[in-house]
Amino acid sequence: MDKFYIGGIDIGGTKIAAAVAGPDGPMIRLVQPTAKTGKARALPEQTVSLLEAACERAGITKDALKAVGVSSCGPFATVDGLLNLATPNICGGRTPDSDLPNDWVVIPLEQVLREHFEHVVIENDCVAALIAERTYGALQDVADCAYVTWSTGIGFALCVDGHVLRGKHGNAGHAGHMLMSESDPAKCGCGNVGDVEALCSGRHLGKRLNMSASDLLNAAHAGDKAALEEVRRAAQWFGRALYNLTATLDTRCFAIGGTVWMYHGDLLLPIVRHEIESRLPALTEGVSIVRAALGRLAPDIGSLCLVSPPEWQQHWRQTSPWQKLM
Amino acid sequence: MDKFYIGGIDIGGTKIAAAVAGPDGPMIRLVQPTAKTGKARALPEQTVSLLEAACERAGITKDALKAVGVSSCGPFATVDGLLNLATPNICGGRTPDSDLPNDWVVIPLEQVLREHFEHVVIENDCVAALIAERTYGALQDVADCAYVTWSTGIGFALCVDGHVLRGKHGNAGHAGHMLMSESDPAKCGCGNVGDVEALCSGRHLGKRLNMSASDLLNAAHAGDKAALEEVRRAAQWFGRALYNLTATLDTRCFAIGGTVWMYHGDLLLPIVRHEIESRLPALTEGVSIVRAALGRLAPDIGSLCLVSPPEWQQHWRQTSPWQKLM
Repeated sequence: MDKFYIGGIDIGGTKIAAAVAGPDGPMIRLVQPTAKTGKARALPEQTVSLLEAACERAGITKDALKAVGVSSCGPFATVDGLLNLATPNICGGRTPDSDLPNDWVVIPLEQVLREHFEHVVIENDCVAALIAERTYGALQDVADCAYVTWSTGIGFALCVDGHVLRGKHGNAGHAGHMLMSESDPAKCGCGNVGDVEALCSGRHLGKRLNMSASDLLNAAHAGDKAALEEVRRAAQWFGRALYNLTATLDTRCFAIGGTVWMYHGDLLLPIVRHEIESRLPALTEGVSIVRAALGRLAPDIGSLCLVSPPEWQQHWRQTSPWQKLM
Repeated sequence: MDKFYIGGIDIGGTKIAAAVAGPDGPMIRLVQPTAKTGKARALPEQTVSLLEAACERAGITKDALKAVGVSSCGPFATVDGLLNLATPNICGGRTPDSDLPNDWVVIPLEQVLREHFEHVVIENDCVAALIAERTYGALQDVADCAYVTWSTGIGFALCVDGHVLRGKHGNAGHAGHMLMSESDPAKCGCGNVGDVEALCSGRHLGKRLNMSASDLLNAAHAGDKAALEEVRRAAQWFGRALYNLTATLDTRCFAIGGTVWMYHGDLLLPIVRHEIESRLPALTEGVSIVRAALGRLAPDIGSLCLVSPPEWQQHWRQTSPWQKLM
């Protein structure tokens, strides 16, 4: 049998990445700013071009790719049985006051990719990261777990009884839009008032003190009292969100990634932990919070996990070949 | 092959029920107040005695029962690999200010039942009701759904991608203890302030007007303005809880039962529906709310579903033989 290869695509609101991998691991990863002008096909066509460029750099043809895995920001919408992107961060036509340079309502991601590749698997980027952490990272052998990214936004992917949750349109895990506060006027990009993202995502952190999230977190680290109080408040909301998921799903372990947690987890962890452990012992006893192991590459590694053969995974588990991309 | 029979046990905080069924349906169902005194084994032993009495009334011996399904209020605790009840409504030793006449911390349900029956399957009562609604009721052929009971308490059972969620100790679905309000001082029996049960369960409904839940709901039906406002408020909280689950699990259909909904659903439904549909269209579009079809017998029918052969289920689906118990 000819040697075969797989492709991985990661679609975010700011950038897209394309990777090519063979049996011994990822060979190349290319990054570009996310296309947001032209027709709605522009973005999926950009991912195909970037993957072709990655193939060329890896010294193979596009036809050598036997399968392509895609991790993408959501939410998704199913149109005529095919998965479309319906994310307000990219589609200008989804919210009346959008400042994006397009009027896209949905992006025909699956349709365009299927015109180029025979085998395509698309997952929410947090789901892909969860699968990566379960395959190679901090959530190996944990049946009841969640991957959480605390960054500009707050995303979740959920696994119960060893089953990764998708839901009716593959949108399970949008718990960042769970309502938490009825009195805080914080408003989310989705229109909600008082949801998890509005209360503590990087996009909103620091707003009340007219600071950026990173300035706020650095000031808190330096001991500034007002900043510390604001960070404590955000960590409480985040912890209450994790408690809500624990009560709902009887979760055992949360693996947390994202820039806010990666750089400031030491400050945030005790506050978050207290919000969980101080409630309903039958559900919260034994819940653990760990740091996501694969860092910013988790969705990329996840996109490859979606289509890589089990024997590759066993080999990669021993060699961690993605480290050369880090 | 000899004709064989199955047993079903339903354990609630107030009463227990035992049923015996054969290929043509349930034959008998007996009910008793829940034992709450003596040793912690008292309650499981009571269920065995009641099931023996049901066998006698059905004209069979206990040994003719090839399997026993149990639906029970939770939460559960796993001790030495066996399922125990840890519900604060029955175990007096779980909360410092309990007024129950025992100091039980856990009840060794599975251990006692296994001393008497070879094949035992135990599920949370809402999970059993969900399985019943999926087998015979309002949730047939819906992969992403939830069963909700709005009664004295508020219980949930969750199904995503056709998989009924259990979690690390079988306690998934305790979303009645999800935190919703940070400013309402309403306190739940579990100790939480501002969780779903504290805000709108039958146990708490009407408290602010010094009325029982049923008096409040009847007054609202009669047009009393203060009562209507209080009911509207409760329905909003309940609707926000269903929205939170939709955002988290991408649910398609909620089947709602319980006395509050069964008798007052017409008043509550438009308010609940608005709380879902006014948010995040990518997740809430197409979400439906239906009335649970099996009424108060759903957990009992569910306990039998847990252990009945598929060919019985096919037959029962055509004959609805539980109706003679209603």
